[in-house]
Amino acid sequence: MRFAFAVHGGAGAVRPGEPGEQGMRQALLACLDEAARGLASGGSALDAVEAAVRRLESHALFNAGRGSVLTAAGSVEMDAAVMDGRTRAAGAVACVRRLAHPVSAARAVMERSRHVLLVADGAEAFAREHGLEEVDPASLVTAERREQLERARRQPALDKGGGTVGAVALDARGHLAAATSTGGLVNKLPGRVSDSALVGAGTWADDATCAVSATGHGEAIIRVALAHEIDAGMRLAGLALETACERALAQVTALGSRIGLIALDREGRTAMPFTTAGMYRGVVRDGEAPRVAVFPGE
Amino acid sequence: MRFAFAVHGGAGAVRPGEPGEQGMRQALLACLDEAARGLASGGSALDAVEAAVRRLESHALFNAGRGSVLTAAGSVEMDAAVMDGRTRAAGAVACVRRLAHPVSAARAVMERSRHVLLVADGAEAFAREHGLEEVDPASLVTAERREQLERARRQPALDKGGGTVGAVALDARGHLAAATSTGGLVNKLPGRVSDSALVGAGTWADDATCAVSATGHGEAIIRVALAHEIDAGMRLAGLALETACERALAQVTALGSRIGLIALDREGRTAMPFTTAGMYRGVVRDGEAPRVAVFPGE
Repeated sequence: MRFAFAVHGGAGAVRPGEPGEQGMRQALLACLDEAARGLASGGSALDAVEAAVRRLESHALFNAGRGSVLTAAGSVEMDAAVMDGRTRAAGAVACVRRLAHPVSAARAVMERSRHVLLVADGAEAFAREHGLEEVDPASLVTAERREQLERARRQPALDKGGGTVGAVALDARGHLAAATSTGGLVNKLPGRVSDSALVGAGTWADDATCAVSATGHGEAIIRVALAHEIDAGMRLAGLALETACERALAQVTALGSRIGLIALDREGRTAMPFTTAGMYRGVVRDGEAPRVAVFPGE
Repeated sequence: MRFAFAVHGGAGAVRPGEPGEQGMRQALLACLDEAARGLASGGSALDAVEAAVRRLESHALFNAGRGSVLTAAGSVEMDAAVMDGRTRAAGAVACVRRLAHPVSAARAVMERSRHVLLVADGAEAFAREHGLEEVDPASLVTAERREQLERARRQPALDKGGGTVGAVALDARGHLAAATSTGGLVNKLPGRVSDSALVGAGTWADDATCAVSATGHGEAIIRVALAHEIDAGMRLAGLALETACERALAQVTALGSRIGLIALDREGRTAMPFTTAGMYRGVVRDGEAPRVAVFPGE
């Protein structure tokens, strides 16, 4: 096999036939097609995960970029991270409000700064200096997200967000990469940083083990150091990818939270477990047809 | 043994007889005395690590709170985290500019919010709402740090910062806790978040394994998920604390960076390895005299 690629569009309390289901399935399929074309022609894992996440950041149905959920203050604050399994180089941004593509800002932090994580005004100043696309913060806000915030304010327990996006890839050179992007949790406090921006929590890639992108209740993912726990399970306990994922997921369950994740090992094996009702996800491998699914057993 | 406690005041290119050495040794000794009194009388590990870090945040010689190093913009931006080994509850703040005690803001995030990490304006608004002590940002800036920034601007390679503070404790009930606080890296980009604020990187505590606080080149610590790697080494590979620390430290060395850390396991054993010229550190155990050291073999 020359390449493998997986993408997710968030895990949560999704129901069959919910508004947007078909649109999200189509968007994931477009990610798989684009990734397969790029990876088949020798593109890097890093380029593949960035391109997929950019596509979903542009899509108003996902909770990332345009269409991000709203904070308690009614604003959009986005987080993203990327990690390169070749070198374990990593970059991330958090609480950015005026960038069209947080994942590309994360990549710029990785490649063009001495740092791993930049947040808020500092992250935006860095992005501006490096020519990344800025947008009016109001253009990121959709009517659906305003209504969702109103519902969350009335009944905080009902709306958990979901819709975080992420991708993992193995390229023809044997390199792994991971990227994640999110608007976070609906009705969150301004300044809250999610697991998606935190290397080791929601995002990890190491050519020696695996690439991981997680979605779901971020605070629990941070407290389990989920993505790094999967890496450690493979490297230190000799677990197979799937077992390492299951054991890490069980720790999140023990904290009372539900999440999902996609993971890919150096042999191109994938694991896409979730403890929520559903997870928007897709996978494609060299020589196989792309597959998109949402519900268990699909 | 009923309790154990360790503290650090940063690892770096320290030289015998450097200005402030005696003052920093005295401050660490005061932390050990206070921690021993508190823990001997049944105080919690969490209270012990918070109190020690608050003391060092008040002390202008350390790179945390007052006396923090300056960003490229000449301002102070501070990061801190705390983790409670009983529940793996965690709280952190980053890029805060007007708080006297970032570590107490981190604890408030842990205990009084639904979140783990709050940054910048949002973190400060949360701290204000919860009555934490605010200060004029200018009062955190010392003349020594202005001079250090000027040197770093002229010769970026020479000044690496150092002076991060942290503490780990085991209390009489068998609970572990860890806390870390820092002004970060001198001449850093505004908005840069250090490992100190990142649970799993510079700070970790789990009653089942260990409590860890790290100091040194933060970007490398993040890319190794250092504190969680030590926990994973003990839990998944059955390593003793010291071996787990050495192996995690070797990964940072492989990335070309120098750091130090303090770690404590549930039996009260400590490890305080560093690959820098020195690390300000101290340890005290029930029934033993407190010991402070800076250089190797001391």
